[in-house]
Amino acid sequence: MIATGVIVEYNPFHNGHLHHIRQSRKETNADIVIAVMSGHFLQRGEPSFVDKWTRTKMALASGADLVVELPYVYATAQASDFAKGGISILDAMCCDYFSFGSEEGNITPFLNSYSLLQEQNDTLQQMIRDAIQTGISYPQALNTAYKQLIPTNELSFVDLSKPNNILGFHYIEEANKIHSNIKAVTIQRIKAGYHDAIEADSTIASATGIRQAIFEENSIDAIVSYMPLDSFKGLEEWRKSNISFGSWETFWPLLRFTIIRHTPQELANFAEVTEGIEYLLLRAARESESFVSFMQKVKSKRYTWTRIQRMLTHIFTGFTWECLKSFKQPSYIRLLGMTRNGQNYLSTKKKDFTLPIISRAASSNDAMLMQDIHATDLYMLALSGPANTKRMGLDYKTPPIRV
Amino acid sequence: MIATGVIVEYNPFHNGHLHHIRQSRKETNADIVIAVMSGHFLQRGEPSFVDKWTRTKMALASGADLVVELPYVYATAQASDFAKGGISILDAMCCDYFSFGSEEGNITPFLNSYSLLQEQNDTLQQMIRDAIQTGISYPQALNTAYKQLIPTNELSFVDLSKPNNILGFHYIEEANKIHSNIKAVTIQRIKAGYHDAIEADSTIASATGIRQAIFEENSIDAIVSYMPLDSFKGLEEWRKSNISFGSWETFWPLLRFTIIRHTPQELANFAEVTEGIEYLLLRAARESESFVSFMQKVKSKRYTWTRIQRMLTHIFTGFTWECLKSFKQPSYIRLLGMTRNGQNYLSTKKKDFTLPIISRAASSNDAMLMQDIHATDLYMLALSGPANTKRMGLDYKTPPIRV
Repeated sequence: MIATGVIVEYNPFHNGHLHHIRQSRKETNADIVIAVMSGHFLQRGEPSFVDKWTRTKMALASGADLVVELPYVYATAQASDFAKGGISILDAMCCDYFSFGSEEGNITPFLNSYSLLQEQNDTLQQMIRDAIQTGISYPQALNTAYKQLIPTNELSFVDLSKPNNILGFHYIEEANKIHSNIKAVTIQRIKAGYHDAIEADSTIASATGIRQAIFEENSIDAIVSYMPLDSFKGLEEWRKSNISFGSWETFWPLLRFTIIRHTPQELANFAEVTEGIEYLLLRAARESESFVSFMQKVKSKRYTWTRIQRMLTHIFTGFTWECLKSFKQPSYIRLLGMTRNGQNYLSTKKKDFTLPIISRAASSNDAMLMQDIHATDLYMLALSGPANTKRMGLDYKTPPIRV
Repeated sequence: MIATGVIVEYNPFHNGHLHHIRQSRKETNADIVIAVMSGHFLQRGEPSFVDKWTRTKMALASGADLVVELPYVYATAQASDFAKGGISILDAMCCDYFSFGSEEGNITPFLNSYSLLQEQNDTLQQMIRDAIQTGISYPQALNTAYKQLIPTNELSFVDLSKPNNILGFHYIEEANKIHSNIKAVTIQRIKAGYHDAIEADSTIASATGIRQAIFEENSIDAIVSYMPLDSFKGLEEWRKSNISFGSWETFWPLLRFTIIRHTPQELANFAEVTEGIEYLLLRAARESESFVSFMQKVKSKRYTWTRIQRMLTHIFTGFTWECLKSFKQPSYIRLLGMTRNGQNYLSTKKKDFTLPIISRAASSNDAMLMQDIHATDLYMLALSGPANTKRMGLDYKTPPIRV
């Protein structure tokens, strides 16, 4: 039985994801596809558009056999820790391959780049430190240093200025670091606007584009051709519940109050808050009626939009540096959903898994899991809509989805 | 120049307050009346109905010559600390008298009760401890013990089961404790429903009754006869601004989120949170869509409604035990407003004041004052209504009101 893993957000699941999952299965000849998916807060430091169970259903309907949760602490982290969480869990679940999307569609330049940077790691780190001194962000510094290191014939190496390539690079790095047997595969991404990509009348847009279209049109009808019908039905169901779609703009009154309620000293205790930015966060929160105007006041050459959003995520959920540092590696596999095929895989292979599988949240009191559950409660409280009392403690009330 | 002080909330200012302020002036033959008034959070642990500047205007229009702020730490405290804050400030402002309302209208029973309890303090404290062991609240325990101590001819003593009498008792206690020369006076309260109390067609209702009527009717028209016209105009102006009246029900979404966002360990750090009630607060917050349903789940024989509301106030403003314990006594006199007469008093007597007077918030960075300013910001954020960016930092932007 060949198992192939993907590390995903599906925010929401669209035709690009469908293409990736299908091609991954095909190219690895997989019997089973496992998706490690973020919960309610994502890698760019944002709340998810719809909840993790709705996104699990979308994934199971379109090719995933098992969906497990990437714990909050990894799902909201910078690329290297995000990769660490995802790869560790896929490795623990005995995957043969992991597959990620890239512009390249060819794994060789990734492997070349990884080898090069391994060999020249000391030089690289010094160059990054120097570049950061000039006031640029870490990802930019890494990319600048890297560009100086690669040979002139750069086609053999991957372009690390692209976020997806950075993730792919860190996946490979992590798999090597933990001496995993898991093998890397990459699938070429289909560009946005590419018509008839998967099915007739279907087309491709990014998840960001899809969310934006829905917020702008205040309707989901415009995006029907960009996703599998089951995904669309998932969004439709969500909308019918009269619960708002998740976004910082919706969450702003609570986030703003939370920032202003804290002293600068308290704000500095939250994960990712560094170098005195707490004063800027406080001032900008006082002055900003909307999230977007807040961000315009806070972002700078030094702090990318994403980095700031990650701080905000941790402030919102009350997640401290101390808490972050207490977590060393993933400690469980949280099952969100499975097909019959996925269930068979679990029955057969579970005994070989190197982490415990959690089907019922109540069966564990792992501190890392508690943070996932806490994040769900706060996410649910922040969504506007009908009475949310019954949306409290959903992690305890929701069994794994079976299709 | 005779100066008489009152310790008040004016939430909002009504005919009962008008009667009290007029009688206090008359009975003490006062040239000047000084009101020490709570800011945006009150002694029963509630947000104020309208802001402190609106309430200051009401007071100045109806007989007060000076309005100064009772700092947050005292305004939100149990009776003895509330009294400590108020009396210390009136003493620091060289008042000759302080005057409080009571059912009695006669100061002798208060003085008798105070002397009795002073003499028998050891016995009293032991009786209170014993009574608390049976599971009743502190005020109830004090009252039970006290009733056992007073002689049969109890008319010479005051009934300490009434909240206003408890306050009066603590005022006297505090004035003695600090060896102040200030003299106690009490004015008989006019009962609710008493018509033509002050002016023709006017009548008396409690501030609680007035607020309730406005929330129930969703209109202020019904309460016009219960307050001086200037007070009514103050409410009218507030309503025209489309800002909601302050109440825990309005603040509930933010308060609820704030409770649920914290761990039980964090909640226990906030002032007044004791004895494991943090677990109950968390559970009840998850289960309650409204403030009133939350309170029904939390209140008990041991925890009075008021005591719980005080905890909630401190959780809402992020005010910790550590912070509370760092404040030993009032450290400033924050001027909110004055008449010309009040201004003259300040010019003449300021040099004798034993605390610095603060007219501009920006001129001080006293930690106790910072807490008042912080409370204003959070209060303003929680009121629903038009854009509240310009309502941030109002303490810095609002000079003392002059009439």
